[in-house]
Amino acid sequence: MLIIIKKEINENELQPLLNEVKTHDLKYAYLNGEEYDILRLEGNLTKVDEKKISAFDFVLQVIKISPSYQKVSNKDEQSFINVNGIKIGRNESIVVMAGPCSIENYDQLKRIGTQVKHFGAAFLRAGAYKPRTSPYSFQGLKSEGISILKRVKEELKMPVVSEITSILAIDEFKDVDIIQIGARNMQNYKLLKAVAKLNKPILLKRGFASTVEEWLMSAEYIIKEGNNQVILCERGVRSFEPLTRFSLDFSVIPLIKKLSNLPIIVDPSHASGHFELVESLSLAVIAAGADGLIIEVHDKPFEALSDGIQSIKPDRFASLMEKAKKVAHAIGRDMF
Amino acid sequence: MLIIIKKEINENELQPLLNEVKTHDLKYAYLNGEEYDILRLEGNLTKVDEKKISAFDFVLQVIKISPSYQKVSNKDEQSFINVNGIKIGRNESIVVMAGPCSIENYDQLKRIGTQVKHFGAAFLRAGAYKPRTSPYSFQGLKSEGISILKRVKEELKMPVVSEITSILAIDEFKDVDIIQIGARNMQNYKLLKAVAKLNKPILLKRGFASTVEEWLMSAEYIIKEGNNQVILCERGVRSFEPLTRFSLDFSVIPLIKKLSNLPIIVDPSHASGHFELVESLSLAVIAAGADGLIIEVHDKPFEALSDGIQSIKPDRFASLMEKAKKVAHAIGRDMF
Amino acid sequence: MLIIIKKEINENELQPLLNEVKTHDLKYAYLNGEEYDILRLEGNLTKVDEKKISAFDFVLQVIKISPSYQKVSNKDEQSFINVNGIKIGRNESIVVMAGPCSIENYDQLKRIGTQVKHFGAAFLRAGAYKPRTSPYSFQGLKSEGISILKRVKEELKMPVVSEITSILAIDEFKDVDIIQIGARNMQNYKLLKAVAKLNKPILLKRGFASTVEEWLMSAEYIIKEGNNQVILCERGVRSFEPLTRFSLDFSVIPLIKKLSNLPIIVDPSHASGHFELVESLSLAVIAAGADGLIIEVHDKPFEALSDGIQSIKPDRFASLMEKAKKVAHAIGRDMF
Amino acid sequence: MLIIIKKEINENELQPLLNEVKTHDLKYAYLNGEEYDILRLEGNLTKVDEKKISAFDFVLQVIKISPSYQKVSNKDEQSFINVNGIKIGRNESIVVMAGPCSIENYDQLKRIGTQVKHFGAAFLRAGAYKPRTSPYSFQGLKSEGISILKRVKEELKMPVVSEITSILAIDEFKDVDIIQIGARNMQNYKLLKAVAKLNKPILLKRGFASTVEEWLMSAEYIIKEGNNQVILCERGVRSFEPLTRFSLDFSVIPLIKKLSNLPIIVDPSHASGHFELVESLSLAVIAAGADGLIIEVHDKPFEALSDGIQSIKPDRFASLMEKAKKVAHAIGRDMF
Repeated sequence: MLIIIKKEINENELQPLLNEVKTHDLKYAYLNGEEYDILRLEGNLTKVDEKKISAFDFVLQVIKISPSYQKVSNKDEQSFINVNGIKIGRNESIVVMAGPCSIENYDQLKRIGTQVKHFGAAFLRAGAYKPRTSPYSFQGLKSEGISILKRVKEELKMPVVSEITSILAIDEFKDVDIIQIGARNMQNYKLLKAVAKLNKPILLKRGFASTVEEWLMSAEYIIKEGNNQVILCERGVRSFEPLTRFSLDFSVIPLIKKLSNLPIIVDPSHASGHFELVESLSLAVIAAGADGLIIEVHDKPFEALSDGIQSIKPDRFASLMEKAKKVAHAIGRDMF
Repeated sequence: MLIIIKKEINENELQPLLNEVKTHDLKYAYLNGEEYDILRLEGNLTKVDEKKISAFDFVLQVIKISPSYQKVSNKDEQSFINVNGIKIGRNESIVVMAGPCSIENYDQLKRIGTQVKHFGAAFLRAGAYKPRTSPYSFQGLKSEGISILKRVKEELKMPVVSEITSILAIDEFKDVDIIQIGARNMQNYKLLKAVAKLNKPILLKRGFASTVEEWLMSAEYIIKEGNNQVILCERGVRSFEPLTRFSLDFSVIPLIKKLSNLPIIVDPSHASGHFELVESLSLAVIAAGADGLIIEVHDKPFEALSDGIQSIKPDRFASLMEKAKKVAHAIGRDMF
Repeated sequence: MLIIIKKEINENELQPLLNEVKTHDLKYAYLNGEEYDILRLEGNLTKVDEKKISAFDFVLQVIKISPSYQKVSNKDEQSFINVNGIKIGRNESIVVMAGPCSIENYDQLKRIGTQVKHFGAAFLRAGAYKPRTSPYSFQGLKSEGISILKRVKEELKMPVVSEITSILAIDEFKDVDIIQIGARNMQNYKLLKAVAKLNKPILLKRGFASTVEEWLMSAEYIIKEGNNQVILCERGVRSFEPLTRFSLDFSVIPLIKKLSNLPIIVDPSHASGHFELVESLSLAVIAAGADGLIIEVHDKPFEALSDGIQSIKPDRFASLMEKAKKVAHAIGRDMF
Repeated sequence: MLIIIKKEINENELQPLLNEVKTHDLKYAYLNGEEYDILRLEGNLTKVDEKKISAFDFVLQVIKISPSYQKVSNKDEQSFINVNGIKIGRNESIVVMAGPCSIENYDQLKRIGTQVKHFGAAFLRAGAYKPRTSPYSFQGLKSEGISILKRVKEELKMPVVSEITSILAIDEFKDVDIIQIGARNMQNYKLLKAVAKLNKPILLKRGFASTVEEWLMSAEYIIKEGNNQVILCERGVRSFEPLTRFSLDFSVIPLIKKLSNLPIIVDPSHASGHFELVESLSLAVIAAGADGLIIEVHDKPFEALSDGIQSIKPDRFASLMEKAKKVAHAIGRDMF
């Protein structure tokens, strides 16, 4: 951390800042310049609050050099997550998680699950708890949905992914193979900490206006609890463009690889908001180097209880999987 | 709602859409055109899912005419919230809520509270539960903080505002006069519903990338539970500008007045991220017609355990209050 | 176009609106409803000004159904641009345009041009006129640069792409094979019209905060002048993320294909702002279905007079081209 | 400028960077650290290209400490602009520029000009050259419009503001008192330089997605040509919110005052896109400390040839001016 300090400051004025530094047991050096001085801090800076230091009148600027997400950026950590024998990560096969937005009933989930499995999905995704913008919209089957999900999981022998929206439901998620934290809950730190303790893989979606740093800090919350099984999931950020719902931020795919070992997957369904864009974006995601995809599939989109417009039908999914495999091979990777 | 439909569609194909419409007991008219047809739906449309209708191949566009936040937009509702005799709303005196970002200890809160009360703040604001981007930052005194807050509230005879971040803490908030839902929790619907049931005034901050419609839908969640004491609070939206933390969206002040009777207040401290900008923005907020301000004040910003840089000192607060009063009078309103 | 009109409006009040409609010789129908009426306009709506119609007190909303970029959306038009025998478009081979950001001198351009040609670039791109944020930065070699570009073009027998920034330089661009309109000039309509008249292919970059509609309207300006040789180029839009310069909006690749026959290419260099991200984004661009790439290549990036950080070196370019070919084949396309 | 450098770099590798530094005749110091080294540069840094320096493999980060807009940030410069005796600036009376979006004919301009003068506008604003998103929209009366503007200016003895969109029209603007550079041309550097040479006051609008730094760099282009009569004008930035056209960035009002002596005015008409929001935003602009307003006024908005919806009628303008005066007095300023 570099603290840029006005010239002509005397030692007395500096004292409270130096005291602050000393409480954190840091190495520091004071570097005089002609236009400004620099106080350089090295060591464990996670406890140092930039906003506090900026509050001193004589501080012109505070510059962080190392990221605050220490555990997330630890490249010595293993680079894959093992879910019931399926590895997700940098040097592993690309995985696809597919299924309906919402669990509507046993038949629907079994039918769609059977198809996505048949066409190559590694995981069945389906929501029981649905955070919806309108209180009048279908909010998910809740506990009953989780029961259906478990039944279909066992019948299809297919691991499942589902979103949790509240601490109160934690016990129900013990048999869910990957627990999803949705974009709206990315900074619901109570939920992050509680879910972390289940010690299961967590799929952490990026908030739709969260910076990469904020996202990785949320991952840090989970890892700090002792659970390093975090799968990052980009799902699009808000933009000014009215023709798409969200803008998928592809740069994060190579960026995350540079900053961390954590696997990164992408959700093209929510981002585009339209089934016609899903295939094109999915192939791009694979070419960009992501470790997986999470895709909404529904066989009767106009009967779907949520997100019909962005779901693709099973035959389109089959065709997408065929093409995805070819693109994966083109960049030297396999599909699960 | 208008559904734009491709020409040359036959009745059979339309049937599933018409069936969908019939289940919701709506008035409808089918209007033939030369380039496209229109299906117009009137009645209670809150249950109609645009994304489901958009999934039909022959649907070109779905256009909502009336907003989905029915209760929020009800202009027959009373236009103020009564908190212990202090009225907040359109035709009432402008209220200021002030205090430190975090409760640090009894002395600090008492000291700052005494000062902001002296200079005219109607409410003491102070956080016990702090959602922080970094797991290494100070997270608030939690229950202990709430106890301190209650003690200071009684000693100063000053109503208090504090943020809740989890359902699990609900019981502790029974003596908090206005319960704040922070920007990160604006779409934490479980929390909204649970807090609504306390039947106390709720200060609902706008998410930093939430549309006005999403914000009002979150207010609708609360009112739908039978609690119409919602105070909307704009706190800045994310922008591309690196010199400010957030961009205060002033347009929402007159917009909210057009769309709803709910009071609208503004938080210039979080938006600007810098104490030097707070006064200028605060005066503008009042001139724009907002019903109140929520401002961070700290007497020792460089000792603050959070958000030091954006807190103003009590003497600046005093001066701001003087000017605010003059601006309020200029537009024909009083300050509490 | 649909004009939503308040109920209980009488015919007299409507008259000025109906007169306005009549001046444009449109078909119209007035559709009564219970909550609002609709005035539907069909025909050539390009002359109808939404903002004028919205100014009537009784107009609640104006909704455009068909886009205003009539010529751009004409799908009967040919779907490729022919540049000296190289076809750019939907069903053609993918083209790569590569070269240095700025022309620095003859040797530099010849050297880099020779290499990018060797590794498969179809076009040499290089700037003579450089719009720079700072007046103190290198602004390009201007006329001298264009002369060098022509010389290298002839020696390498390689068509060239270069940016024009002012009407005054138009005569110098007669031998430039594709004339680039930069993002900052996307809405410099005088320039668009003047360049259109040269009747040469135009590479039209999207403004960094322009909507797809605004972008296509700028293309419409060019086509309206009788020149339909427009190549659209996405180069990233502004976002709140500080770790990347711009966010490439991949959704526009399939979107543009839906809305128009015009070729769409992508510039991953400006978008990412960092050479390490260029390869990953380039492969994604191809997989998403774009018709080409424009990439900055420099053999001595730290000697470059502009944009060093985002240029890749020739050996990285060679490796990128190898991989790009494989991805192109995977989706059933060839590289030029 | 601080250049953060990887440890374990040897002197040979550093040489090209040090050479680069030497060519610019800068003071520098090399500061060893434990985790990274720092190369500090002081002196005239305007010629140093960050992107070039960032291209060295061993450079981790380049941090600018002082802004590049040297002339703009010179606080010794006078702090007002004198237009025919009317002073615009920090300690001067607040000025209002008002009038129709477009000049439509002599009668319209005379009529509206007479009214806005009567109600207190200091300047008449009206456009002859209109950059329009659609090639089918009214593009302004051009030269004829400028002639009408001059005639009305003389008859009303009222200085005028009008937008220039092309170098080719420069001669026509010699009698325009303040020449406006529109948001779309903020980075049309050729135009900036050409207009600067007329040595007349220039109203420089902020691009709708331009950072404050980019905006001030555009002002620097003008001042570098020897013309320091630049009036900055905020007109709203693009946001994700569909209910408003642009979001006025109020933070820039106090920010610009901190960074520069240049006057700052605000355009609430374009920002809001709706006449109903104009008054509220205008009062806020004054309270925030801006030096002026530019407002669209039209007596027959539904006959306006452009921007009808965002124009206010003269009676609303009169009422706005009354209130504006009161708010100005409340913050201790006068209105012209």
